Amino acid sequence: MSIMVVKVAINGYGTIGKRVADAIDAQDDMEIIGVTKTRPSFGCDLAVRKGFPLYCTFDEPERIAAFAPAGYDCKGGLSELLAAADIVVDCSPGKVGAQNKQIYEDAGVKWIFQGGEKHVMTGLSYTSSGNHSENMNQSGTRVVSCNTTGLSRTLVPLLRKCGSLSVECTMIRRAADPGDSNKGPINAIKPVLKVPSHHGPDVMTIRPEISINSMAVAVPTTIMHVHAIVATLPQGHGMTTESILDLWHAQPRVVIMNGAETGITTTAEVMEFARDIGRKWGDLHEIFVWEDGVKLDGDTLYYFQAIHQESDVIPENVDAIRALMGLESDWNVSVSKTDKAIATYNGL
Amino acid sequence: MSIMVVKVAINGYGTIGKRVADAIDAQDDMEIIGVTKTRPSFGCDLAVRKGFPLYCTFDEPERIAAFAPAGYDCKGGLSELLAAADIVVDCSPGKVGAQNKQIYEDAGVKWIFQGGEKHVMTGLSYTSSGNHSENMNQSGTRVVSCNTTGLSRTLVPLLRKCGSLSVECTMIRRAADPGDSNKGPINAIKPVLKVPSHHGPDVMTIRPEISINSMAVAVPTTIMHVHAIVATLPQGHGMTTESILDLWHAQPRVVIMNGAETGITTTAEVMEFARDIGRKWGDLHEIFVWEDGVKLDGDTLYYFQAIHQESDVIPENVDAIRALMGLESDWNVSVSKTDKAIATYNGL
Amino acid sequence: MSIMVVKVAINGYGTIGKRVADAIDAQDDMEIIGVTKTRPSFGCDLAVRKGFPLYCTFDEPERIAAFAPAGYDCKGGLSELLAAADIVVDCSPGKVGAQNKQIYEDAGVKWIFQGGEKHVMTGLSYTSSGNHSENMNQSGTRVVSCNTTGLSRTLVPLLRKCGSLSVECTMIRRAADPGDSNKGPINAIKPVLKVPSHHGPDVMTIRPEISINSMAVAVPTTIMHVHAIVATLPQGHGMTTESILDLWHAQPRVVIMNGAETGITTTAEVMEFARDIGRKWGDLHEIFVWEDGVKLDGDTLYYFQAIHQESDVIPENVDAIRALMGLESDWNVSVSKTDKAIATYNGL
Amino acid sequence: MSIMVVKVAINGYGTIGKRVADAIDAQDDMEIIGVTKTRPSFGCDLAVRKGFPLYCTFDEPERIAAFAPAGYDCKGGLSELLAAADIVVDCSPGKVGAQNKQIYEDAGVKWIFQGGEKHVMTGLSYTSSGNHSENMNQSGTRVVSCNTTGLSRTLVPLLRKCGSLSVECTMIRRAADPGDSNKGPINAIKPVLKVPSHHGPDVMTIRPEISINSMAVAVPTTIMHVHAIVATLPQGHGMTTESILDLWHAQPRVVIMNGAETGITTTAEVMEFARDIGRKWGDLHEIFVWEDGVKLDGDTLYYFQAIHQESDVIPENVDAIRALMGLESDWNVSVSKTDKAIATYNGL
Repeated sequence: MSIMVVKVAINGYGTIGKRVADAIDAQDDMEIIGVTKTRPSFGCDLAVRKGFPLYCTFDEPERIAAFAPAGYDCKGGLSELLAAADIVVDCSPGKVGAQNKQIYEDAGVKWIFQGGEKHVMTGLSYTSSGNHSENMNQSGTRVVSCNTTGLSRTLVPLLRKCGSLSVECTMIRRAADPGDSNKGPINAIKPVLKVPSHHGPDVMTIRPEISINSMAVAVPTTIMHVHAIVATLPQGHGMTTESILDLWHAQPRVVIMNGAETGITTTAEVMEFARDIGRKWGDLHEIFVWEDGVKLDGDTLYYFQAIHQESDVIPENVDAIRALMGLESDWNVSVSKTDKAIATYNGL
Repeated sequence: MSIMVVKVAINGYGTIGKRVADAIDAQDDMEIIGVTKTRPSFGCDLAVRKGFPLYCTFDEPERIAAFAPAGYDCKGGLSELLAAADIVVDCSPGKVGAQNKQIYEDAGVKWIFQGGEKHVMTGLSYTSSGNHSENMNQSGTRVVSCNTTGLSRTLVPLLRKCGSLSVECTMIRRAADPGDSNKGPINAIKPVLKVPSHHGPDVMTIRPEISINSMAVAVPTTIMHVHAIVATLPQGHGMTTESILDLWHAQPRVVIMNGAETGITTTAEVMEFARDIGRKWGDLHEIFVWEDGVKLDGDTLYYFQAIHQESDVIPENVDAIRALMGLESDWNVSVSKTDKAIATYNGL
Repeated sequence: MSIMVVKVAINGYGTIGKRVADAIDAQDDMEIIGVTKTRPSFGCDLAVRKGFPLYCTFDEPERIAAFAPAGYDCKGGLSELLAAADIVVDCSPGKVGAQNKQIYEDAGVKWIFQGGEKHVMTGLSYTSSGNHSENMNQSGTRVVSCNTTGLSRTLVPLLRKCGSLSVECTMIRRAADPGDSNKGPINAIKPVLKVPSHHGPDVMTIRPEISINSMAVAVPTTIMHVHAIVATLPQGHGMTTESILDLWHAQPRVVIMNGAETGITTTAEVMEFARDIGRKWGDLHEIFVWEDGVKLDGDTLYYFQAIHQESDVIPENVDAIRALMGLESDWNVSVSKTDKAIATYNGL
Repeated sequence: MSIMVVKVAINGYGTIGKRVADAIDAQDDMEIIGVTKTRPSFGCDLAVRKGFPLYCTFDEPERIAAFAPAGYDCKGGLSELLAAADIVVDCSPGKVGAQNKQIYEDAGVKWIFQGGEKHVMTGLSYTSSGNHSENMNQSGTRVVSCNTTGLSRTLVPLLRKCGSLSVECTMIRRAADPGDSNKGPINAIKPVLKVPSHHGPDVMTIRPEISINSMAVAVPTTIMHVHAIVATLPQGHGMTTESILDLWHAQPRVVIMNGAETGITTTAEVMEFARDIGRKWGDLHEIFVWEDGVKLDGDTLYYFQAIHQESDVIPENVDAIRALMGLESDWNVSVSKTDKAIATYNGL
């Protein structure tokens, strides 16, 4: 009996693309058949180093030809890559999605977009624990943003337990990624003046039963977003602070630690923890919840969670491929398989 | 007819003390008769420059004697200062209040503490627009913290209009003041793990009818706190986004500007605005509300406000003196008098 | 006897322009007859508030007409302003100089550019203590950058004393101004890879006898540049650390303080000092030298100085007007007059 | 024939200790026989995870006993660890060295201190490329600081080529490590007022022929120090910018890249490069030199280098063990062996 190995193309080998490629490469039921870059640049070295065939994001011969003089072996344009692929993971910068979607459909491949694209463009969104089954065998989906993924991880199990939820979330967002030296502010807080912001409501593309709004500010840090969450549970919920913590302990891709006991009291120590446990890039795929920052007060639940903006969606992309390709219908099984393969740390 | 001029002592001439002294000095119904420092240091120069008599925070002769060799004329210890005062404004670092209160009462002077002390110690708290009249002729009070003062400015008028209010506030706090080079973090977000935090509920020491909780994070900036506020108005409130803005426009010490129109979109530009209009120290006594960040959605009001942590309580201390000394029973009259005297900018 | 009052136009009312306008406004031998903005914006409020006539940077009628609907009374275009002026201070963003210079010459007014323009464009540069006399009655000049001005303040008196100087300067530069929330980096050091950088050699446009090179890095702070300077004095210089400090004490616009004694050990405390002494915008026109950071070791002099990038050139613009207009030939007299008029703090 | 495997103890399993332990663990001629912690804490988990026997930094029974209740198996006190060791690497916080040295000598083990201790205490210092042979078979040494190690890497080959060198270095230092959320400043530059600083001259403990002074500032970043270096070569040096680059290309543990070509223009991108190539903790053992920031101008060489303060000394500790234990007398052979074993990236 032969095992189907899904052929995956990565369109856009940048911050997200390079991580998704590694995560896919670690699985036994899928393989990377190529990654694209717009032009020869340092990122190409990384692809070569990893052994991923390199393609050009465009089909124009002169753009493809530009790689050779810089010392890179470019296998061809996007069309050639898609011709050999079963599915493409689009990791290009946001807002070019609509145009690419048509290209993918014309090429007859399935597609996954990232959270920079809007739900209205894809018509379907995805998180592993939220709605895996409704993504089974579909032609394409959108893996939601790092923030929405993080909210889904802790809110969906609450929803399952309580039946309904009303949530207000304030997002304190890092203003730039660690490798980005251009963006500010250096010394200011920047509120997102459109209130409520779009981040929270995006959770409803996954589970419409969660009533949620959010506000957001950007702050001068490069590591992790923090969510300050106030959730109202339905009357008669029967939950306690402890039972909620138990619920999250049982949830994959959530790490719970006590700040006072571990000394992990800021995002600096959370990221140091991720470095210590040996994660590639120092990534933390899990959502980090401070045990001593969780409190259920009557019907109102308060908690903080920290989100590693560069990486929490990475394993979700792997699971999404399994859903779209019909490889695995049980989300828990897919998550275990994904995380085991990429040596995700599952509970120190 | 002679006008009574209240004799005011400042105990602790630091970040808050130096500003309160200047604000009092600008009034015609009160005067600074002395300020204290614990030891000779650069802050003494400033007192000398301003012409404020310099005293020692302690009565021990050797501590008083330490000022002369450093070139400062120290007039004596705290007891001597209090003996000549009608009222003392305690601006010493937090948590030494209980001990000082007894000293003040023994000296027979009225007293004002700052928000670093707890309400339970003073039994009475103060904001100009919140509860001026209940502070009339009392023996002492506590001017609440910068955060509580800021919340009171925008919530009390809403409370007056609506009768009741339920509020969740997330405070994004500057981690250190501009002149403080020791504190971090440099690159992290630090949640205050005790949830709900004490900041929000402190508003109820001013107006117990406001039901409020808060969460807080510290971030790597030195300028201003930002509040992300979700307030639930009672059913049948009859308010609109516009009528709420009108309410705040009519409220003293609230500045409302449109971020998109003015380009003032972060706390950096807010502080630059304060520098431009010529404020001492670049202070902003007013609470800054972004017009385009206010939205009433059914019963739920969302808004952002920025708080200048070093200065919003300064004029409140002046008004609190008037209340305790029985100089003026109408808070609006006191506020106008205070602000006119210190040339507060009142509506560009 | 009538006193000539020079009529000054400010072309570009931004970070530098607003400060230069205030400094000129404080003098009795010159007056502001108008300032320009490219379009209606918040900066116009400030001009109105200060009572400076408002003009448009351009002459196109539709651009001039755009001010009225925004509520601003625009008196006309640049040509109309220049027609009434004796001299124009160009505070527009760097690199538009060459074009403007022709406009100014055609209008028959004298002109001053800022350090963002190159010496080769103006053919003449200026610092008050460096080369005032060679600027007397010239048709135009360039007030050098904040860094070059700062170097000139401490190096020129050394040059006068020693006859020659060889200097290596490393500039640690703030990456963005306080009111600028867009620029980064948030967490990185950015070297200026062109070595030696242009900053140091620019001093030679003022005093070619100083042999100087520099290297520069940008760092995530908004307040002040710091210079780490290694100067080689000629053999037989006869100087000591103390005599160098005496030299600088006698030099206008240099403040010297001992870090250990005052607690002013970083740029944070330097800026707090400027706020404390009541400077507009919290500016520090003076160069700040740490007394305990100066050491002459044989022929090699080490010292640190801090530069307030927003303001050290402001009084120099005033003096430059006096030179070009032939008002005062003695630079020391001009400096004293300028600084007294703008209430510059001259030696606490 | 049996191969001697050196038994190594790590006293102090923190930022440096945890990295040194991993590097030693990767070698075939040495092994970790235990690491110490002062008390049960999160760092113990890491030791357990890695399989390193855990000891207490102290011998007091009650301190040893404190580990068990926290769930850690503590094998005993420092004395017990030393009794089984050939050599101890002291990675305890600076300034406790003198006391520990006596303990190590009494226990009859060889010792290595880190750069936080002074040369005068150890009498001998070490860098792999600087003075490996003079450390052969000695009883103990000091691996110099990250900064001195970095300077040694680029200066020693120049010295070998030119015979003498005179150097001025300005160090722009990160103010706190990534996992440290307490230290500031958030928005300031802090000069080290003692000039010249001790950092540069420390190079002379390795190679006294290099005449070097340094100045230092701390800045609000957590990643990497940057050195701005001005080196004066002796007359008749015969070098060019290109020949110097060639020299460094041939030098182990130096990475040279062109900022303009790679887009790696700040320490942010340098660290991202280290993450991309898969280093544990995202470390960069190599010194990073910007090719386009190197310029030889007559006898004066200008260049920038970036130092990963957490890790550049790690492989040097391994080599130092080989020197002290007499395992390998050729530094180049030791460096190759070390770096191959820890999969150090050696020239992309």
